[in-house]
Amino acid sequence: MAVAERIYAIMENGEGRSGTAFQIGIVALIILNILFVIIETEESVYVLYGKYMETFATISLIIFTGEYILRLSLYRHKTESRRFALVRFAASPMMIIDLIVIMPLFLPFLGVDTRLIRILRLLRLFTVFKLARMSESMSEFATVIKSRTSDFVLAFSIFFIVLILASSFMYYIEREAQPEVFYSIPASMWWGIVTLTTIGYGDTVPVTPIGKAIGAGVAILGIAVYAVPTGIIATSFNEYRRSRKGTTCPHCGRPIDLR
Amino acid sequence: MAVAERIYAIMENGEGRSGTAFQIGIVALIILNILFVIIETEESVYVLYGKYMETFATISLIIFTGEYILRLSLYRHKTESRRFALVRFAASPMMIIDLIVIMPLFLPFLGVDTRLIRILRLLRLFTVFKLARMSESMSEFATVIKSRTSDFVLAFSIFFIVLILASSFMYYIEREAQPEVFYSIPASMWWGIVTLTTIGYGDTVPVTPIGKAIGAGVAILGIAVYAVPTGIIATSFNEYRRSRKGTTCPHCGRPIDLR
Amino acid sequence: MAVAERIYAIMENGEGRSGTAFQIGIVALIILNILFVIIETEESVYVLYGKYMETFATISLIIFTGEYILRLSLYRHKTESRRFALVRFAASPMMIIDLIVIMPLFLPFLGVDTRLIRILRLLRLFTVFKLARMSESMSEFATVIKSRTSDFVLAFSIFFIVLILASSFMYYIEREAQPEVFYSIPASMWWGIVTLTTIGYGDTVPVTPIGKAIGAGVAILGIAVYAVPTGIIATSFNEYRRSRKGTTCPHCGRPIDLR
Amino acid sequence: MAVAERIYAIMENGEGRSGTAFQIGIVALIILNILFVIIETEESVYVLYGKYMETFATISLIIFTGEYILRLSLYRHKTESRRFALVRFAASPMMIIDLIVIMPLFLPFLGVDTRLIRILRLLRLFTVFKLARMSESMSEFATVIKSRTSDFVLAFSIFFIVLILASSFMYYIEREAQPEVFYSIPASMWWGIVTLTTIGYGDTVPVTPIGKAIGAGVAILGIAVYAVPTGIIATSFNEYRRSRKGTTCPHCGRPIDLR
Repeated sequence: MAVAERIYAIMENGEGRSGTAFQIGIVALIILNILFVIIETEESVYVLYGKYMETFATISLIIFTGEYILRLSLYRHKTESRRFALVRFAASPMMIIDLIVIMPLFLPFLGVDTRLIRILRLLRLFTVFKLARMSESMSEFATVIKSRTSDFVLAFSIFFIVLILASSFMYYIEREAQPEVFYSIPASMWWGIVTLTTIGYGDTVPVTPIGKAIGAGVAILGIAVYAVPTGIIATSFNEYRRSRKGTTCPHCGRPIDLR
Repeated sequence: MAVAERIYAIMENGEGRSGTAFQIGIVALIILNILFVIIETEESVYVLYGKYMETFATISLIIFTGEYILRLSLYRHKTESRRFALVRFAASPMMIIDLIVIMPLFLPFLGVDTRLIRILRLLRLFTVFKLARMSESMSEFATVIKSRTSDFVLAFSIFFIVLILASSFMYYIEREAQPEVFYSIPASMWWGIVTLTTIGYGDTVPVTPIGKAIGAGVAILGIAVYAVPTGIIATSFNEYRRSRKGTTCPHCGRPIDLR
Repeated sequence: MAVAERIYAIMENGEGRSGTAFQIGIVALIILNILFVIIETEESVYVLYGKYMETFATISLIIFTGEYILRLSLYRHKTESRRFALVRFAASPMMIIDLIVIMPLFLPFLGVDTRLIRILRLLRLFTVFKLARMSESMSEFATVIKSRTSDFVLAFSIFFIVLILASSFMYYIEREAQPEVFYSIPASMWWGIVTLTTIGYGDTVPVTPIGKAIGAGVAILGIAVYAVPTGIIATSFNEYRRSRKGTTCPHCGRPIDLR
Repeated sequence: MAVAERIYAIMENGEGRSGTAFQIGIVALIILNILFVIIETEESVYVLYGKYMETFATISLIIFTGEYILRLSLYRHKTESRRFALVRFAASPMMIIDLIVIMPLFLPFLGVDTRLIRILRLLRLFTVFKLARMSESMSEFATVIKSRTSDFVLAFSIFFIVLILASSFMYYIEREAQPEVFYSIPASMWWGIVTLTTIGYGDTVPVTPIGKAIGAGVAILGIAVYAVPTGIIATSFNEYRRSRKGTTCPHCGRPIDLR
């Protein structure tokens, strides 16, 4: 199994020159695919270069399929448990995303409509997650964010409580003045989210004096609603940074608690 | 009073299996009620499922009434003072909210108009506060926020001083160019709040060069006005987090309460 | 001069019952004046209660004049230098604001137009600065903010450099597509400020593809432009809070460096 | 070479009275040039003062040319390497900007169209970078920001991943309802950037229920996307400030460079 181990070292850890070349190649392929999915939707571009782009997409999907099969064959290195190791590995989120990306290549054989397949080609956008897998700092950051799940649950609970109360009040106050805008609480929640996140498109705005007074209160509350997750992420980032640096005094070598 | 104590342990502390079951049940009932109040306002949904939803609402209110009576009967566990203990407990904010929520059930007997009662059913939205009571981390966070009341008073004083001065100036400058928008200082304050919170709906915007110059100044000041509460909440959250984790003095090693 | 010292103790330090009563009275008078200046501009309110409000304004200004004269007479307590002590004190920012507020009372005797005087009555809004003088925590906070002047100069320099470059580019790109909106760089700077502060009214928006591309870049840069002052104010506030608390370990009494 | 060294001391370090005078003079010249480039674009101003402003621009460019030549002649003080020292120095970013600024002075001799030259005169705006060179705190801050490049790469990767996925989904959902707004993914990305940066102009807004639901999700995600760079910059600023103040190790007392 020396060959498999060698492939594993190249693919997963990017060891040696071939490892670096492999990773750069895959990253370039992913970025080109994403760029093409985006530009392809410009009618003028598609008319001119659509054919070449579709050929490129097909070739890319074949390469990704090869990568998928290789990765799958290395399942022994990824799961510790013996039983159903292949199935378990194939069912991991990253492998499912990889499978989704290459799927459009096989659907024509299953008799799926060609028009649907063209839409499904946008699934190549999911290759961005492949990029995320390769970035070490991104997965480290994800770990830090995960460790504060309870704080985020708290922050978003506050957000939703304020959102539900604000939108419901606004609905009862504005629905008579603007029945086509605030026609239901879900419709009113669009206003609530646009206001609490301080986006403020201006497509739904209170017009009655009481509506404006409540809207003003919600806008001010919105500062708090916005500041809590900002505070969590800012402190998370700070802690993540410190945990990476493992701050020690450069003179005496002892750790410094910067908290 | 062993039964009352047992009920108390189940309801308030969520002890044992029945405690967990009770809490999950109440939380599910609250979430369903809130969801139904929201969806019910969609005409198409109400036409189809309105009847079932109203029945569900009535049953929920009966359950909440039972819960209210049970909670009320446990008043001895909640207040330390002997005199008027029941009245004091019933007058606590959480119990008043509980009473407001179940009120629509009894109003028909008091001869209140049925149409008004339908509107009052939205009071079930207040059950979100019941959720907040159950969340330990939310009440802890509320304590931290409360401990910084003086900072928030300072932050909102700055906000209101800037708001009043900005809106008044804008009123005197823009009222001639846009008499239907900046017709009074309170009307101009709607612009002020929408600008200082960086929402920017675009329904009220200065059009004169001087108005735009002042608006630009207010927009830049708005960064500061926004940053102060953000700073307070971010540091509060940091302290709240530390207080949960436990900080110790680097000199004597004993824990420090940073709250 | 025992009387003057007693008055000083009452007015400036709010000593004793009369001090508290004096301060509460002045604060109430200020808040009522500000509220009335605001509400007065609502036509419907002015028609009904305008006369009473104007009488109240005149009485308030007479009281503020008395306060001003009293404060002025206590000049010896405020300036250390002997020469021109009265003039120096009268020329201090707070005393000038006090003078501006009461000015409209004396202008009719100087033959100033009555219509102008009605507008000048809005100067009562400046009494908010009188409030600020009374708030100890506000003046403390002002000291902290002042101590970081150099940081704010840096932050606003960055802001203005980005603003000038972004607005000039946008002017040269959009002026042909939207000559009535981006007709000059100052006009384009309105777009720049509205974008960099993330307000986004939507009254001036790039429409050309290149304009949108640059606008997108400016929007992303705007995050940084916004984050720097937020960072400064957040850390200022943190330091200000600590400087107030003078953090020491509650067990061993030694100071803790929380930085 | 005593003269060259003296000039170097004056120009680069601002030594002595002549150094201060030189720096103030250049800063004043830069600020006036920037102001004039901005105001010049106002048609009414150009009609009246355009001629004087153009003369001022020509004189300024001559002075800047003199400064450029002087600076260039001091190349020995700027580069350590011997070979191609002049070329290397002339190719440094700051010297290229200086050259770009003075270029319009020489283009007429190269037969460049006069109309183009008028547009190129706006290149004087790049003198803001000359200002940045002179500000010590700005270059220090730039160093701190540079030291966190990897964090910013992470933050903007997250931003772009969210942006690409959000915009592509929105395109597929809204293109049928609003074919003139969401006609391609690049067009849809304009919506994505305006939403994720919380600007919210309101020129592109989802109108379908599913579009609004996804828009709401993106808006909430936007808080996180916005908070990460804010957190990085806030902590950078904090560290930059500390590095300026000087932090010492609590164990051995020696200064620590936290940068």
